[in-house]
Amino acid sequence: MASMSSFVGSAQDPHQDFTIHNLPLGIGETWAGDGKRTVLSRIGDTVVNLDALASGGFLSGPILSSDVGRSALRSNSLNELADLGPNAWFELRQTLQRLLSSNEGVLRDDKAAREKVFYGLDDVVMRCPMEVGDYTDFYSSKEHASNVGAMFGRDPPLMHNWGCLPVGYHGRASSVVVSGTPVRRPRGLVLPKGATDPVYKECGVLDYELEMGFFVGQGNDLGCPVPCDDARKHILGLVLVNDWSARDIQKFEYVPLGPFTAKNFATTVSPWIVTLDALEPFEMEAPEQTLAPVSSYLCHSAGRPRQTYDIDLEVSISTSQNPETKTIATRSNFKHLYWTIDQMLAHHTVTGCNARTGDLIATGTITGSREDPMSYGSLLEKSWGGTRNFKLDCGAERTYLLDGDRVTMRGRCERGGVRVGFGECTGVVLPANPEASN
Amino acid sequence: MASMSSFVGSAQDPHQDFTIHNLPLGIGETWAGDGKRTVLSRIGDTVVNLDALASGGFLSGPILSSDVGRSALRSNSLNELADLGPNAWFELRQTLQRLLSSNEGVLRDDKAAREKVFYGLDDVVMRCPMEVGDYTDFYSSKEHASNVGAMFGRDPPLMHNWGCLPVGYHGRASSVVVSGTPVRRPRGLVLPKGATDPVYKECGVLDYELEMGFFVGQGNDLGCPVPCDDARKHILGLVLVNDWSARDIQKFEYVPLGPFTAKNFATTVSPWIVTLDALEPFEMEAPEQTLAPVSSYLCHSAGRPRQTYDIDLEVSISTSQNPETKTIATRSNFKHLYWTIDQMLAHHTVTGCNARTGDLIATGTITGSREDPMSYGSLLEKSWGGTRNFKLDCGAERTYLLDGDRVTMRGRCERGGVRVGFGECTGVVLPANPEASN
Ligand SMILES: [Ca+2]
Ligand SMILES: [Ca+2]
Ligand SMILES: [Mg+2]
Ligand SMILES: [Mg+2]
Ligand code: NI
Repeated sequence: MASMSSFVGSAQDPHQDFTIHNLPLGIGETWAGDGKRTVLSRIGDTVVNLDALASGGFLSGPILSSDVGRSALRSNSLNELADLGPNAWFELRQTLQRLLSSNEGVLRDDKAAREKVFYGLDDVVMRCPMEVGDYTDFYSSKEHASNVGAMFGRDPPLMHNWGCLPVGYHGRASSVVVSGTPVRRPRGLVLPKGATDPVYKECGVLDYELEMGFFVGQGNDLGCPVPCDDARKHILGLVLVNDWSARDIQKFEYVPLGPFTAKNFATTVSPWIVTLDALEPFEMEAPEQTLAPVSSYLCHSAGRPRQTYDIDLEVSISTSQNPETKTIATRSNFKHLYWTIDQMLAHHTVTGCNARTGDLIATGTITGSREDPMSYGSLLEKSWGGTRNFKLDCGAERTYLLDGDRVTMRGRCERGGVRVGFGECTGVVLPANPEASN
Repeated sequence: MASMSSFVGSAQDPHQDFTIHNLPLGIGETWAGDGKRTVLSRIGDTVVNLDALASGGFLSGPILSSDVGRSALRSNSLNELADLGPNAWFELRQTLQRLLSSNEGVLRDDKAAREKVFYGLDDVVMRCPMEVGDYTDFYSSKEHASNVGAMFGRDPPLMHNWGCLPVGYHGRASSVVVSGTPVRRPRGLVLPKGATDPVYKECGVLDYELEMGFFVGQGNDLGCPVPCDDARKHILGLVLVNDWSARDIQKFEYVPLGPFTAKNFATTVSPWIVTLDALEPFEMEAPEQTLAPVSSYLCHSAGRPRQTYDIDLEVSISTSQNPETKTIATRSNFKHLYWTIDQMLAHHTVTGCNARTGDLIATGTITGSREDPMSYGSLLEKSWGGTRNFKLDCGAERTYLLDGDRVTMRGRCERGGVRVGFGECTGVVLPANPEASN
């Protein structure tokens, strides 16, 4: 597998996320202005129009050449393709890998065909890859939850239930936006230090949360939980997620029903869904779960290990004054998560909740190690509740995000010469809307 | 207005919810088996096919006879009509009221036309009235929140933030089901009394929550909050809501991020959306807000009063042994809510969250008075945390719901001889799925 290569030159770049081992799925508008959304993949710096590929007769596998397969690729969202299930995704990936490999001439040697199905990155505006029915956010990093607990003075820092189940809450689907969408600083109710009454004001403590999320492919019926063993059959793939958070608003509102307006103003996802098939080479055993006994519905059958993925993650920040100077603020890895994606989906559906095609389920902030502040997945932790500044490479200092700051997340896997990456999940902070002032 | 009457006989029944003053909106399948969903209204025990009415040329107003209006009535959901905005809803209601009134002959005297547009109740299977993008649940009853706080030993029973903003959380949209859908008793993690580790078991403490909810008509853009004064322009109408709750599962999971699997297995709504226009005769001033100063974004402009509605609510329970014997378990009224629907929408969007057409926003449990246990909107309160039984009229006793129990909610307004009701929101409890057992 490591020796596979593509005839698309940019795919061979050693720093390329979108190698022939990746072949992610996305949705974009391929012609400026006409607004038609198209099902896409990507190889190197080339975007592949899968509808055009199917029209050209290149996708001859049994599922994708059928009526439902053809309809899914002609759709303006990925939901139809996701609903076809893992065999369809596998067939598509296998076919693409063959069509794009160095030793296959059918596209390589057909300039007219290539002109119909290949686009430059600049010819495409990427959109949110799926129509999100429901968005859920978990809290699966032991290191992150422990940091937050310790900061709030809890000893031990983790609550008892945290070790027994993957704690999660329902988020807001309407404000899930694609990478590149600017994020407006919110206004809300904040309790100033020492005050008894809250004040309606601009958020002063705007934060990012480094997360990943998975999109549900085929859903489950209401009343029929998904067992751990079956979870991955329901998961199309992963994206990077920035769960923007207004800490001061959150602090005042969140007891007892959880975060609400502090999180529902924007959640950014990367545009390319990296499939579980593409991530398979980077599977590894998940950390042992020693905090508490794990209930049967959160366990795989005997002999089936709890698997996670080795995905390096980083967050960089740049300012509007020095947009070219990016400071790495966080370096972490998906593999540190205590709860796996299988356990998240099994828990989400345990009482019978139906997951639907297009649902986004995020992991929660991914912090690497409590000993290493560079691995902290949020500024809340990095600044230890706002008590510590850090220096950007451009010389400026930050505790939390200022207007004009750009936050960019990246993720990549590499093993034995095989590389698969997520591209970026980026957003710039806009000043609060002046019209909303009081 | 009180003197208006319809030529549809059943609409004149003094106990009829669906008088000529109501004319709610719903979605149903009008022919058994073909699965086509149609936009409907209702008068008495007659269902009105609005698509057929438009096809017959009866809806001649400027909005509904336009291409977008015609398309909205031909749709298989109410979302398109909702997105047309208040002028379209008003036009539809005015036209229907005229067409169905006693002194208008155009339908009354045209048997062939009536046969095309009128259906019996048994000819229609009602579906969820809207495609729900996001579901949010508030916690707006001071009496309910105080009961819960007191039960948990808090003194004062209300948290400080409760009086400053309408506390709410994101719920699960996928499991919003229409009245009549059975609800399966969930399984999940429960901490037995005195135990240190939780057990995976059937919910033993299944509850209803008497709520109402509103559906969003036209949404707002991300980043642009809806002011209180504009809120009702964005609201199509109200339905009854039963926010089924697994109290034992909730207790173990909900700190610190709020209820999750304990609430996401089902939320039942009544099928007929009663529009704000129909509720106008029952408007009344909302209770004074004396707990804390109310921030500007939660206030109307000077001179515009905070309005709510006078809607009598009741919950009845019957058992599988005695399905005909219905015991009233709760009698309450919408007017007791501390926070208004305007304030809920203004708060929901204050940080910039975008509401979308079809979003369901529920009020939270509506308890009437802390002095009157018959007004408690949940069994959690009625049984005071499971410590008190109550007798059903059939002789059985209950603390919480048992398998086979049916919970039915009703709501109605009456003033000066004008009556508008919500029909019912009902669901029966099925035993836990045996296959999910461990
Ligand atoms: Ca988060
Ligand atoms: Ca509720
Ligand atoms: Mg978010
Ligand atoms: Mg519910
Ligand atoms: Ni390399």
